Amino acid sequence: MRILITNDDGWGTPGIRMLAEEMSRLGEVTVIAPDSPRSGHAACITVGKPLYLSEQDCDIQGVRVYTTNGTPADCVKLGLEVVMADARPDLLVSGINHGNNCSINIMYSGTMGACFVGAEHGVPAIGFSIDSHAMDVDLSHMRPYLLQLTEHLLSEGFRPRMCYNINAPVGEIAGVRWTRQCRGHWTKEMLPKADAEGRTCYELGGEFVNEEPEAEDTDIRALADGCLSVQPVTIDMTDYAAL
Amino acid sequence: MRILITNDDGWGTPGIRMLAEEMSRLGEVTVIAPDSPRSGHAACITVGKPLYLSEQDCDIQGVRVYTTNGTPADCVKLGLEVVMADARPDLLVSGINHGNNCSINIMYSGTMGACFVGAEHGVPAIGFSIDSHAMDVDLSHMRPYLLQLTEHLLSEGFRPRMCYNINAPVGEIAGVRWTRQCRGHWTKEMLPKADAEGRTCYELGGEFVNEEPEAEDTDIRALADGCLSVQPVTIDMTDYAAL
Repeated sequence: MRILITNDDGWGTPGIRMLAEEMSRLGEVTVIAPDSPRSGHAACITVGKPLYLSEQDCDIQGVRVYTTNGTPADCVKLGLEVVMADARPDLLVSGINHGNNCSINIMYSGTMGACFVGAEHGVPAIGFSIDSHAMDVDLSHMRPYLLQLTEHLLSEGFRPRMCYNINAPVGEIAGVRWTRQCRGHWTKEMLPKADAEGRTCYELGGEFVNEEPEAEDTDIRALADGCLSVQPVTIDMTDYAAL
Repeated sequence: MRILITNDDGWGTPGIRMLAEEMSRLGEVTVIAPDSPRSGHAACITVGKPLYLSEQDCDIQGVRVYTTNGTPADCVKLGLEVVMADARPDLLVSGINHGNNCSINIMYSGTMGACFVGAEHGVPAIGFSIDSHAMDVDLSHMRPYLLQLTEHLLSEGFRPRMCYNINAPVGEIAGVRWTRQCRGHWTKEMLPKADAEGRTCYELGGEFVNEEPEAEDTDIRALADGCLSVQPVTIDMTDYAAL
């Protein structure tokens, strides 16, 4: 099996390293990751600027690693058309993202943006995230689930234009739950500050507002209940009910 | 009525100017646009870098204009929380984008990324695009439809988490069609080149592959038939059929 791995935090973060270690037990792993953090980059692609690939040393058996000045979505395109052009990946895995990609976060997530590109190209794609932005958060409780869930989802098969968004709670995992995207929004995001010259500028902050806190089948609720959230996602954004 | 306008090509392009002119007939218009082209930026947000707003002169009656160093998604957040914080917009209009946002393009589109942020916040949002990347393409055939479609869609109402993706053909408009997102993908995107120092780099190109050319209800087909494509879009990406 040929596995392409990417993320939006860059190579060298604990999450992507654990993914590479675990996926190398399934097959031949190629990592292509941004050379700097690209959080909040969604499916952003680089227009009108050249992209470079740079091979990195890697001490994990069966894993080769490249970094690029591109976005997570660019990483997948470089994987499909350049690095793995002669031997297309059978699987794309993205993450482990530091910070959950539940609810509306999926729309802003570079981790999931990469998966959307996989879905565009019919490559089974799974994004993994942990519900903490701390770079030193303990990920060890996720390790046994990475291969187990991946193999299970591959055996179930992927519908066209579909990928998976998997989010893990911090600490112990009480169970695994199929979920839907919780309705919610961000508020208090644009925090005014004065820069060094006294000019007003705005830095991203934010508080998440859960618009359906009572619902039991959402991704947010799964995390609140200590469960792993497993969510099938489609890149067909047509609102068929409205149509 | 209070109307927020943005785009991903920046202020000063013919498309956003025509939108501002037409929407000023509906109400009070605030334009917040990127200070440089942001094509392919999806719903990318700026993390860890301060954003600035700069008011611009504008000769269109009832229109005030700001530019920012942020993305289209940032523009909407700055609109909701800073510029229009005391008087929330009743409508968000994005575009007119130079280049169609049909099929998989919607996922990469900064124009539509801005609309998704509108949908997140319950602001009715409509993205307009023309099927040509030429900055001097004739837009005059679109002008009568901008207000007419906007007023019609507002009167029909917006479901939660929904927005509209409207694409126009070049030249005459043969009709208006409700559509769904065509299944398709991009290929030959990463074009190898040698830079000034002889290093290999990759620049974005691409050919679009229509995966369902026979289908009659898609956005791509509407444009091919000379029709305006009107598509309801949801930001709930859960794949309910798979779930």
